[in-house]
Amino acid sequence: MSKYWSQVVQKLEPYVPGEQPKDKTYIKLNTNENPYPPSPKVLEAMRETANENLRLYPTPTCDELRNCIAEYHGLKKEQIFVGNGSDEVLAFSFLAFFNPNSPILFPDITYSFYPVYCAMFHIDYRLITLKEDFSIPVEEFFANNGGIIFPNPNAPTGKAVTLQDIEEILKHNRDQVVIVDEAYIDFGGVSALTLIDTYSNLLIVQTLSKSRSLAGMRVGFAMGHSDLIEALDRVKNSINSYTLDRVALAGAMESFKEESYFQDTRQKVIATREQTVALLENMGFQVIPSSANFIFISHSLFAAEELYQQLRKEGILVRYFNKERINNFLRVSIGTDEEMECFIKKIAEIVG
Amino acid sequence: MSKYWSQVVQKLEPYVPGEQPKDKTYIKLNTNENPYPPSPKVLEAMRETANENLRLYPTPTCDELRNCIAEYHGLKKEQIFVGNGSDEVLAFSFLAFFNPNSPILFPDITYSFYPVYCAMFHIDYRLITLKEDFSIPVEEFFANNGGIIFPNPNAPTGKAVTLQDIEEILKHNRDQVVIVDEAYIDFGGVSALTLIDTYSNLLIVQTLSKSRSLAGMRVGFAMGHSDLIEALDRVKNSINSYTLDRVALAGAMESFKEESYFQDTRQKVIATREQTVALLENMGFQVIPSSANFIFISHSLFAAEELYQQLRKEGILVRYFNKERINNFLRVSIGTDEEMECFIKKIAEIVG
Repeated sequence: MSKYWSQVVQKLEPYVPGEQPKDKTYIKLNTNENPYPPSPKVLEAMRETANENLRLYPTPTCDELRNCIAEYHGLKKEQIFVGNGSDEVLAFSFLAFFNPNSPILFPDITYSFYPVYCAMFHIDYRLITLKEDFSIPVEEFFANNGGIIFPNPNAPTGKAVTLQDIEEILKHNRDQVVIVDEAYIDFGGVSALTLIDTYSNLLIVQTLSKSRSLAGMRVGFAMGHSDLIEALDRVKNSINSYTLDRVALAGAMESFKEESYFQDTRQKVIATREQTVALLENMGFQVIPSSANFIFISHSLFAAEELYQQLRKEGILVRYFNKERINNFLRVSIGTDEEMECFIKKIAEIVG
Repeated sequence: MSKYWSQVVQKLEPYVPGEQPKDKTYIKLNTNENPYPPSPKVLEAMRETANENLRLYPTPTCDELRNCIAEYHGLKKEQIFVGNGSDEVLAFSFLAFFNPNSPILFPDITYSFYPVYCAMFHIDYRLITLKEDFSIPVEEFFANNGGIIFPNPNAPTGKAVTLQDIEEILKHNRDQVVIVDEAYIDFGGVSALTLIDTYSNLLIVQTLSKSRSLAGMRVGFAMGHSDLIEALDRVKNSINSYTLDRVALAGAMESFKEESYFQDTRQKVIATREQTVALLENMGFQVIPSSANFIFISHSLFAAEELYQQLRKEGILVRYFNKERINNFLRVSIGTDEEMECFIKKIAEIVG
C-alpha cells in the first residue's frame, strides 16, 4: 500500500490467474488451455504478418476481423466487437452497460473475475445462489437489477445453461443488458446466438483462447445488437484506440477459415473429456456434467485441497479454489489423451 | 444513443485517432509512425514465436520483458510495468493514481486522450494554459492538485520540457503522482529517468510504437518506484490478466537488444526533421522547435485547414486539430527523406 495509490486501487482484490510455475515441467491442467496447437495455417498467417508493416498502427476499427467473424456467425460487422482477449471485452462491457448504484446479478459460483470488474468500476452486485446441483435458479434472475452476467457453460462447474432458460432471463429483463459469457461454448452447450436478432439486450462474449487454441495471442469478441457494439466501441476508444496488434488480427482471421481443424480439435477434446469422466466416476468421483474443456470433480473420501497438493507433487497442475461451496472440488482442464492417462494414473494411485 | 448504454458511456466523447483512409495510397504523415521498419531480427524473433506454444497463455507477469527493459535502463524489474501500447498504460495509470473529486492538472494543449481518460474514469481535471510559445508555465503546476500529467516532448507541439522544470514540478508535488509521458523522448528531449530513484512520485511512460517502429504490435511501458508499479499491476490484474501476447513480448524483447539499429533509425528521423524544418522556414512557415518525430507548423498567409485539405488531395496525410489556439497549425510526422521531399515539393507548390 502506498499513499500514491488511488482510492479504488487501495480497495482492490485483483483476480489471480492459474499458476504458471517454472520450477519444473508440469502437465498443465489448470488454466483451461487447449492441448492442441493452433492450425499450421494460422501460424503461417501470423509469420507472414511479421513484416515491415509492423511500423504502422493496425486499423483501429478492426474491420477485416469483424467482417470475418460476422460472416462466420451469419451476422453483420456492426454486430461484432473485438478485443484483447475476452477478459478485456468483459471489462469493457461492465463499463459500457452497468452503472454504480444499480446492482447487477451473477451466480455465487462463477468466473471469479466478475466481482473484480465490479470493484474496479464501482459497480454493485448481488449474488444469485446456484441450486445444490450448481444449476441456475432462473426465476431469481427476474428480480429488479442493473444488468446480468453469467457464463454458459458456467465456470468453474462446466455446467451448461439451456437456451430456454436464457430466453426466459432475456424476456424478464428487457430494460437491462444480459451478458452471456460463452468462453467455453464450443465444447458443449448451445450458443445464444440465435437469440441476438430477437433480443436487443443480449450480448454474447466469446474467445479464441480456448476452442481455437490461441490463448497466447489474446483475442476475444462480443456479438449483439449494433447499439451494444457501439457502446463497446466508445469504451475502447476512450481507453486504447488499437487493442489488437497486426499479428493477432491475422491469426484470428485465419482461424475462422480453418473450420475442419477447429471441428477436429474441439471434438477430440470432447471425446477425451467423456473418457476421463467415465474413468473418474469409476473411481468414486462426483463429476458435474461438463459442457466445457474442463471438469469439476469431487470425492467424498478425499479432500480436494489434499488431492491438488499431491497431484502438484506428481507434476500435474489442476485448479483448486478455496471458496465456500466449492472447496472440495478440483477443476481439471482436459489435456491430450496422453496427459489425461497420466492424470488418471496418478489420481488412481492417490485415491486407490 | 441507446437505453442500454451506461451513464458514463452516454456522456463520453471518445478519442479519435488519425485517419487511415483506404481509398488510395497516401504518404502517411498523420499518425507519427516511424518511417523505418522494425529491425529484421525483431521480425525474426516474432516469426519464431508464432509456434505451437501459442495455445498457452503468456506469462501474466511479463517478467522476461520487464527484466529486459529494466536492464536496458539500469533499473529493477519491480520498477517496470508493461502494457498493450502506452495508451493502455496511461489509462491504467489514471485508474491507479488519480481520484474523482481531486482535479488533476495537464496543459491546455496536449495529447487529446487525457480528457477522454478523465471522462471514462470520472476524474476531474483543470487545464494549465501553456505560454504563448507553447512552453510549460512551471509554477502553475505548483497549485493544489490530485496529480499531474504532461508529455515530454509535448504533443502535438513537439516542444520539450527541461529536466530542471520537471524536477521543480516533482519537488512541489510530493504527495501526488506526476506522470511524464515520454512517447517521443527518443527523438530529442531529455528523459526524466535519472530522477526516478529520487522522486517516488514520478512515473515515466514510454512506447515501442514510435522510436522502435512497432506501432503495429502495441507495446508500451511505465517506469517508476516499485510502489507505483504495484498499483499498475493491481489495475491490470483487475481488468485483464494477460495484456501482451506472446509474439508482441518476443518482438519487444528483441527490440531492446538491437541497439545500433535503434540508434541509426532514430538519428535518421532526427536528421530528416532538421532538414525539413529548414526548408519549411525558408518558405515562411513558423515551426515550433521539435524534439519529436513530428513537427508543428503554421503559416501566417495560409489557413492550416486549407493546407490540410490540399495536401490530402495531393495524396499526403497530415494531422489537423480544429481546436482553439492550434487551429492554424498542422502536425506533420517525419517520414523518409523521399516522403519528406515529396511533402516539401507539394507544400511549396501550394504556398509558393
